[in-house]
Amino acid sequence: MRTLAGQRKGELIVLSGPSGVGKSTVISELLSSRRDIHFSVSFTTRQPRTGEADGVNYNFVSRQEFERMIADDELLEYAEYVGNYYGTSLKVIREQLERGVDVLLDIEVQGAAKVKERCPEAVLIFLVPPSIEELSRRLHRRNTDEEETIQRRLEKAREECRESVHYDYLVVNDTVVSAAGEILSILQAEQCRTSKMLFMIQSIVGNAC
Amino acid sequence: MRTLAGQRKGELIVLSGPSGVGKSTVISELLSSRRDIHFSVSFTTRQPRTGEADGVNYNFVSRQEFERMIADDELLEYAEYVGNYYGTSLKVIREQLERGVDVLLDIEVQGAAKVKERCPEAVLIFLVPPSIEELSRRLHRRNTDEEETIQRRLEKAREECRESVHYDYLVVNDTVVSAAGEILSILQAEQCRTSKMLFMIQSIVGNAC
Repeated sequence: MRTLAGQRKGELIVLSGPSGVGKSTVISELLSSRRDIHFSVSFTTRQPRTGEADGVNYNFVSRQEFERMIADDELLEYAEYVGNYYGTSLKVIREQLERGVDVLLDIEVQGAAKVKERCPEAVLIFLVPPSIEELSRRLHRRNTDEEETIQRRLEKAREECRESVHYDYLVVNDTVVSAAGEILSILQAEQCRTSKMLFMIQSIVGNAC
Repeated sequence: MRTLAGQRKGELIVLSGPSGVGKSTVISELLSSRRDIHFSVSFTTRQPRTGEADGVNYNFVSRQEFERMIADDELLEYAEYVGNYYGTSLKVIREQLERGVDVLLDIEVQGAAKVKERCPEAVLIFLVPPSIEELSRRLHRRNTDEEETIQRRLEKAREECRESVHYDYLVVNDTVVSAAGEILSILQAEQCRTSKMLFMIQSIVGNAC
């Protein structure tokens, strides 16, 4: 949307989806087509996986540091998931949105609900697998988790999919290109929402309004 | 959306915009990219313009015939505009939507409001010119109307733009390709709305739901 002065404010986009659905790949595809989107790197207390870099995939911090950020109200939202904290810095996001930059958050369902509460204009998108069987195949193929963890993740996925009714949009991650394409369409459509285009009506009806 | 049996129902898309904004050209562009969309040909009592064909641009009927259709409740909506009737056949649209075909209606603001009332799931898109000056240029360039008619159309355009706040989306017809592209994105986004994807959640959470 634009402010009264005609300055476009950025869109806050929240992307969630069960573990293993392929969110990171879809996000990479998205960011390569829309280099102007700011991807908000979350803070977490979990251990980095092989190949993950601090400040790129996550800002990896200690539990003590995370709890200090909570105490100092530095987070837009945070949640605990499978024993680890995940959270989003409020300051960085606010700055980007004010500058007119669209911001993409990769957060889970509890965090998404908190964002929607604090920012009702945020666009919530939930990425679903084509089926639960396909999600199971993807989790096994990833080969990073024990069978017990995979089963726990599948159960969690079912729970999260039930929560997805609170999202604005559902995108099926059938292929990365189609899923990223649908998300790009959603962003374009959201920018055409009448509530965000009122400045355009004003400019047309002018003084007669 | 899909019915309980998983059969996708068509989307009802309403496109409005002031006279001279370039709606017909945008519609042609749209229909050439999405040949599966059914364009609903309106009924009207106005005289065909040069180049317009019966059954293609409009179904041209007499005032007497139009008033019979009103009396027999054969119309989804109808309105009088600059002394002529314009209306939409209910039967054809209903059949297409049930078959899963998306239907595009080109109607003015009074008709659009009636469609939204009878079918709240309809997606209302309003096409605006980049500015009122540009609309004036386009109306003069078209060279089909007297100056007085143009001035009446411009005044009507301002009124309609004020009404556009009741639409779901506003699309600026800057270039035909960009406007058609935005409308295609809106259609894709609408198909991802959570309310229309509930069948997907059901299929994932399955019996556990």
